Amino acid sequence: MTVMRHEIGEQPEALARTLDTLLPLRDQIARLAEGRRHVLFVARGSSDNAAIYGRYLCEVLAGRQAALAAPSVATHYRADLDLSDTVAVCVSQSGETAEIAETQAWAAAHGARTVAVTNVDGSTLADAADLALITQAGAEKAVPATKTYTTQLAAIAVLVDALGGKQLDFARVPDEAARLLDIDVDAAAEQLAGTQHTLVTGRGITYGTALEVALKVEETCLRPVRGLSYADLKHGPIAVVDADLTAVLVAAPNGPTLSGMTELATTVRGKHAAVVGIGGDAAFAGQCDVALPGPDLPEALAPLALVVPGQVMVEALARRLGLDPDQPRGLSKVTQTDH
Amino acid sequence: MTVMRHEIGEQPEALARTLDTLLPLRDQIARLAEGRRHVLFVARGSSDNAAIYGRYLCEVLAGRQAALAAPSVATHYRADLDLSDTVAVCVSQSGETAEIAETQAWAAAHGARTVAVTNVDGSTLADAADLALITQAGAEKAVPATKTYTTQLAAIAVLVDALGGKQLDFARVPDEAARLLDIDVDAAAEQLAGTQHTLVTGRGITYGTALEVALKVEETCLRPVRGLSYADLKHGPIAVVDADLTAVLVAAPNGPTLSGMTELATTVRGKHAAVVGIGGDAAFAGQCDVALPGPDLPEALAPLALVVPGQVMVEALARRLGLDPDQPRGLSKVTQTDH
Repeated sequence: MTVMRHEIGEQPEALARTLDTLLPLRDQIARLAEGRRHVLFVARGSSDNAAIYGRYLCEVLAGRQAALAAPSVATHYRADLDLSDTVAVCVSQSGETAEIAETQAWAAAHGARTVAVTNVDGSTLADAADLALITQAGAEKAVPATKTYTTQLAAIAVLVDALGGKQLDFARVPDEAARLLDIDVDAAAEQLAGTQHTLVTGRGITYGTALEVALKVEETCLRPVRGLSYADLKHGPIAVVDADLTAVLVAAPNGPTLSGMTELATTVRGKHAAVVGIGGDAAFAGQCDVALPGPDLPEALAPLALVVPGQVMVEALARRLGLDPDQPRGLSKVTQTDH
Repeated sequence: MTVMRHEIGEQPEALARTLDTLLPLRDQIARLAEGRRHVLFVARGSSDNAAIYGRYLCEVLAGRQAALAAPSVATHYRADLDLSDTVAVCVSQSGETAEIAETQAWAAAHGARTVAVTNVDGSTLADAADLALITQAGAEKAVPATKTYTTQLAAIAVLVDALGGKQLDFARVPDEAARLLDIDVDAAAEQLAGTQHTLVTGRGITYGTALEVALKVEETCLRPVRGLSYADLKHGPIAVVDADLTAVLVAAPNGPTLSGMTELATTVRGKHAAVVGIGGDAAFAGQCDVALPGPDLPEALAPLALVVPGQVMVEALARRLGLDPDQPRGLSKVTQTDH
């Protein structure tokens, strides 16, 4: 078994530990954010995909405006913004990504309250933040982030739930993630191994999941893969959908975006592209060439388990392509953006 | 001459007309935005790429926090946000994109002041907005947006300049755009015609230009093309950079991101990928396999002309590939996202 596959399997326990640790902090989070109407997420890479989930959840569930920071505004342009109405949520697995730490310091200097979401207690990010939410993933050895990503989602969901008045029930999340570990991904991996172009699409609360699956295929299997939103696919690049392409559609099990994803599956197949579906409901799965099951959770929490079938598929795809998913070419574990 | 090439050539005059029309509105814009600390851009497709420019410019030049709306938060989740500290800037060439109009109505209903940026006076978007900035591109007949895009950039620059206290000098913009119409793009088009994969990268204020060039190649030449930020390229997908790939690097002529773009050109060529550079300075051009000149303008205004060499290149590439740039497959002029 590869290290990546082993770490994928550790996610139910990592999620349970993280939720146990962080759920008691909700009142403290709510006090820290009191009177602040804006949430600014600061992240890169897989953490950025987690932040995109947080951005939707914040607006939909907690009624607070949320945005993703453009770190160069802080690190290169040193913009003078008034962030006194803002909570800055800085997400980095290692807590040592220099660009994120620098942006966190900039945000604090400009009036923001800061929350760090990191897997490393005592890291630069954790120590400098007003509040640190330490994910309990344990050490991650494979280069592709899996358990550190899903535990970031858990931390972000706890944070948003604190802002939104504790409406979410997290109890079934670990079991739903566990249920998806042993699904059959052979047909999906075979389809992706043989395709010329791949794109991955989702919408709304599951958009970040689609971007994360795209990033995983790209960095693990060394192929250029597009992650893009449902709307952006409808709006332009649909012109490039043809028989050479496989579209991976990531759908929530319920909620207002599901019917559009089902229609998109039909549209894409009508253009002779193959569709691999992840999640959704029976009607959605029925419109896909290959369908992988997703979790039975409310849409707001579905992303915490919905990425699991995608991770299992990517790991199998890498092995099928003769690649080592644990050590992809050109990637290192602590990522830095040049200064 | 194709219609697209003709419309590319109309941009200097369209920019001059738009600036003449909108610059006198700066005081009115400033009054409308008074006391509102946040700017929320609402857009899709090429207009979204214009909004990304606006987002950076707003934070860097006007010191106001800016974000791009996720329209599904309004149209599908009907989130209940307090936008009483926000100016919503809704960008649509036709002014009839239903999703944008619906999001504008949602923003107004939640307390935002609204500004429409559209090419059509009397359109749904213009009529419903608190203030309409009508771009003066004239009718655009080719499907790929060119002059409507650059005039949107001009309108957004005027808007941000109004918020930032009138610091920008727009006088040389039309001439700089004109100077770039007749550059030699043969070598760049030849390089892109023969490559297997293409990605386009920029950073900060020119990031939106990179995404627009990527979208133009994709929709005009019917090839999957990645537009991604400098940092995201450094952070992960650099693993897929190899001899099969051509990277198009879009650089500002000056400013804090230029040296990083020059280093990136060196890094990418070190991995045996070809680099087509647009803009930058002599040091940047020297690190590229093929270099197209950009405008001699301050970084803040460079995007209004920097996209021109990219447009000329894309139009030539489409013809070289035997395609009709005026009527790409699968695209229509007024774009709608499903509801």
